[in-house]
Amino acid sequence: MKPAMSTTSPRPLRTTLPANAYTDAAWFTLEMDRIFAGMWLAAGRVDHLERAGAFMRVDVAGASVLVVRASDGSIRAFHNVCRHRGTRLCTGAHGTFQGSIQCPYHAWTYGLDGRLIAAPQMDEVAGFDRAEFPLRQVACAMWDGHIFINLSDTPSPLPEQLGELPQRFSSWRMQDLRRAHRIDYDVATNWKLVVQNYNECLHCPVIHPLLNRMHHYLAADNVPSTGTYCGGAMGFKEGVETLSIDGQRRRHFLPNLSPRDREVVHYFAIYPNFLLTLHPDYMMTITIWPQDCGRTRLVAEWYFHPDEIAKPGFVFEDAVEFWDRTNREDWAISEQSYLGISSRGYSPGPYSERERQLWEFDQFVLSRITYQANLHTAQGGGAS
Amino acid sequence: MKPAMSTTSPRPLRTTLPANAYTDAAWFTLEMDRIFAGMWLAAGRVDHLERAGAFMRVDVAGASVLVVRASDGSIRAFHNVCRHRGTRLCTGAHGTFQGSIQCPYHAWTYGLDGRLIAAPQMDEVAGFDRAEFPLRQVACAMWDGHIFINLSDTPSPLPEQLGELPQRFSSWRMQDLRRAHRIDYDVATNWKLVVQNYNECLHCPVIHPLLNRMHHYLAADNVPSTGTYCGGAMGFKEGVETLSIDGQRRRHFLPNLSPRDREVVHYFAIYPNFLLTLHPDYMMTITIWPQDCGRTRLVAEWYFHPDEIAKPGFVFEDAVEFWDRTNREDWAISEQSYLGISSRGYSPGPYSERERQLWEFDQFVLSRITYQANLHTAQGGGAS
Amino acid sequence: MKPAMSTTSPRPLRTTLPANAYTDAAWFTLEMDRIFAGMWLAAGRVDHLERAGAFMRVDVAGASVLVVRASDGSIRAFHNVCRHRGTRLCTGAHGTFQGSIQCPYHAWTYGLDGRLIAAPQMDEVAGFDRAEFPLRQVACAMWDGHIFINLSDTPSPLPEQLGELPQRFSSWRMQDLRRAHRIDYDVATNWKLVVQNYNECLHCPVIHPLLNRMHHYLAADNVPSTGTYCGGAMGFKEGVETLSIDGQRRRHFLPNLSPRDREVVHYFAIYPNFLLTLHPDYMMTITIWPQDCGRTRLVAEWYFHPDEIAKPGFVFEDAVEFWDRTNREDWAISEQSYLGISSRGYSPGPYSERERQLWEFDQFVLSRITYQANLHTAQGGGAS
Repeated sequence: MKPAMSTTSPRPLRTTLPANAYTDAAWFTLEMDRIFAGMWLAAGRVDHLERAGAFMRVDVAGASVLVVRASDGSIRAFHNVCRHRGTRLCTGAHGTFQGSIQCPYHAWTYGLDGRLIAAPQMDEVAGFDRAEFPLRQVACAMWDGHIFINLSDTPSPLPEQLGELPQRFSSWRMQDLRRAHRIDYDVATNWKLVVQNYNECLHCPVIHPLLNRMHHYLAADNVPSTGTYCGGAMGFKEGVETLSIDGQRRRHFLPNLSPRDREVVHYFAIYPNFLLTLHPDYMMTITIWPQDCGRTRLVAEWYFHPDEIAKPGFVFEDAVEFWDRTNREDWAISEQSYLGISSRGYSPGPYSERERQLWEFDQFVLSRITYQANLHTAQGGGAS
Repeated sequence: MKPAMSTTSPRPLRTTLPANAYTDAAWFTLEMDRIFAGMWLAAGRVDHLERAGAFMRVDVAGASVLVVRASDGSIRAFHNVCRHRGTRLCTGAHGTFQGSIQCPYHAWTYGLDGRLIAAPQMDEVAGFDRAEFPLRQVACAMWDGHIFINLSDTPSPLPEQLGELPQRFSSWRMQDLRRAHRIDYDVATNWKLVVQNYNECLHCPVIHPLLNRMHHYLAADNVPSTGTYCGGAMGFKEGVETLSIDGQRRRHFLPNLSPRDREVVHYFAIYPNFLLTLHPDYMMTITIWPQDCGRTRLVAEWYFHPDEIAKPGFVFEDAVEFWDRTNREDWAISEQSYLGISSRGYSPGPYSERERQLWEFDQFVLSRITYQANLHTAQGGGAS
Repeated sequence: MKPAMSTTSPRPLRTTLPANAYTDAAWFTLEMDRIFAGMWLAAGRVDHLERAGAFMRVDVAGASVLVVRASDGSIRAFHNVCRHRGTRLCTGAHGTFQGSIQCPYHAWTYGLDGRLIAAPQMDEVAGFDRAEFPLRQVACAMWDGHIFINLSDTPSPLPEQLGELPQRFSSWRMQDLRRAHRIDYDVATNWKLVVQNYNECLHCPVIHPLLNRMHHYLAADNVPSTGTYCGGAMGFKEGVETLSIDGQRRRHFLPNLSPRDREVVHYFAIYPNFLLTLHPDYMMTITIWPQDCGRTRLVAEWYFHPDEIAKPGFVFEDAVEFWDRTNREDWAISEQSYLGISSRGYSPGPYSERERQLWEFDQFVLSRITYQANLHTAQGGGAS
């Protein structure tokens, strides 16, 4: 097959990734090890863990993690695995521990800070020291109400990954917002195709009749991509006030927004699993949970200001319906992308300039795989 | 275990293939690459694509192919994959394109001849030339109304694969026939066991009570096998006129058949995916679509002369019911073969002389795998 | 991560196996080859094959085996695979052959002793000798009414595997007992976790409210483990007579039991697939059938003395309900163990002294894998 470039081009065309980056189970395993188990992942919200003992379970990259509000008020994360014989400690998605975490098999018992406080029959074992068998910790950090976890044993600081985003979005006071709705989706596509779909609006006139009434699809004002996120703002068309089923805004602006921020939607993909969409009057988040090469769970959540929620006539359905419809259009086409890329006839194709952020995301993926591979080789090999 | 041969034999017994040829996923992948993606496959009928824009989708060997009637009346085949970001262009099994083929994601648009005629936002990309991004073609050729496709980049001519068959069956004028019925089957067996089952009638007295009333099971008059097909004719028992539920013929003979051809059924397996069965008054075809080692989709179709179809009292149910019943008997036993061959207790067993065509088919399979392997080695290796 | 041992310990802690022993498909294949296809497996009961021709089908370790009562009264086992083209001979789980075993495809016919007695069209094949194509035998031996099979071509004698058990349990006269009930379970766990769960009662106070009313959970009186089984006896708490829903015994003691054996339950795990539980008035057996790393079929059966069964007021439901409830508690926690061990957060944990038999079972597994691996290397390698 002829290579996909022109001989008269000053530089080769920027093209999509080869098929194996989407369809090869070994590549997927590398992504889970080096991207999902090596970076900070959006895992939920501080306001969902109000009381001491409150927890949520997060299953990702082959791990099961308990995020827990400890007795001292801090939020901590632990592997959901007993240090005795490896039993899963907790099967519920969320709930409240009553002061301690007890394994349902042999009653090894841990404090909310992870310390092992009881291990029946073990104290008589020569050489056994409870202090050596706490729950295995998972790094945990907060950004403005969002909880992030990091499965690496040597995580870089969360601010490195977020760059200038905390400053950029400080006026939204995201930690004040509260969730009104959640929808889970199970999508037959590769997780990267979800990120790519989010990062361009060239497809908007083709597949999003509703969204295309709200934005001009070429009007995105993107920030320079970093190695850890990309995004930008899109203004509304004449007469549109927010993204709702009819473009009308049924809630006050979020407090403290600048006049400019009252007229745009900010779309940011914070690699690898967090899609943050900020509207004049609400926030939508989507978290991405890869299951295998061709299957991804997505969780969409809608957050509003508590003053609005408290009002008698509060509505959120206009925003949920708008995005649920638009999301489903995106998931459907992303499934068709996955099918096409998985087939014998696929070869990498050229990106336009309007898809520059997608190419940059691809380079991020490649660099995480390659950098770690080189590092690994330099250290003399061995199983990763 | 004792080897399966007699020490007094002039030559070793001819035996079935080792288990891994049926159960090993890597072997299956080789078969898809070297047999199904390297030979001509029966893919449908010219008469199913009457108007310009009419298409059918064929998924095989990891490819999805669109077979399309172009504006100039020619029939062409393309990979069902957009050259932009790899999206599957078309999800329907068949239908009609309105003058062009448009990708549902970003509206790249192709002519019915595959040329890229519109690619939004791309013309401004330095070095991009639409002429370099047509739909990827799949080779396509006709034989007497049957459409064949070939996924190889360097296909041999179709007549090489068909040998003397076009001459042998010219009096049937197969292109004149029209389909009256289709049944799809999903069978839990390896595709080769379907071909082998078709190529011998030793099992007829055991599992086909109905068929065994029509033919004498030892009466096959086979042509010498070639490397690409095998087959022969079987005469009817006294009083039988065709293969129908009661052996009675309810339609005129097909025009132009010789007296001899009015008294037999021709059974030909055209490797790798076409089983062609020609009766005095109708044609049945079965196409074979391997899904994985142990799962095969089969499509059976019944074709009749249009003069018969046009008659008020036309019936086809007698032929369909005869073969549907017989087919299901064959699929059921082929599933039991696959289960047995997949088990720890299997070892290759001896063929009788009546199963000579099966052994020859096995040699065809081995030669395609081995020849290509040798070629590959001679060229210095690398991924295939 | 810090290694799971204390620097002041006189010896390293005994720990559970690494995760791959539970989750790696290649390890599972080794276990099937070297443990399940290399040792004697409990496969059913002599009393279930009363008449000549009676058979049962046993699918294990990739094999399908027919256990048959032959015409001379002996019990024999054969691979359920025709020597002609590998067809599965028999699909039923049990039944009766009428004097011979005939392949449903081409009618090759075998005696109940496995000899090939008819092979249509084969006698004319030069070099073919029916004597060379009997059904492939599987080793078969009895212990006190239990049928054992062994897939190895060079099985060690059954008594080597059973050691002193036949002598230990001779007073139970197990061959006299008859089955009153059977329950099949499909459990999402690794087979070894079922054996380990059976071999300790530390979990009894935590998950078995009913069982814990019957035994004192620390009261097991274990025999020294051998390389092929482990087990011991547990006495009843005050007022308990047997394991039934209320601890009351509704049947006479089994004849010939010593006073001591009337006051205990014997729990023996006979590696790899037989859990034998002997009560004062009945026997429960569980056979273990691994399907893949994380799925295991279990068959529980309850046996009673025929004199009791013959009585008008015979009941068995009290024993079945007791164990069905207890079994399901065990399967549920074993599924949670498998989930935890399969996750990224698992690392081997320490055993207490009360779990000594589990560690010894682990060493048995490792020795079967390692011994065979060494043997294999010593013989010059090649595919196993």
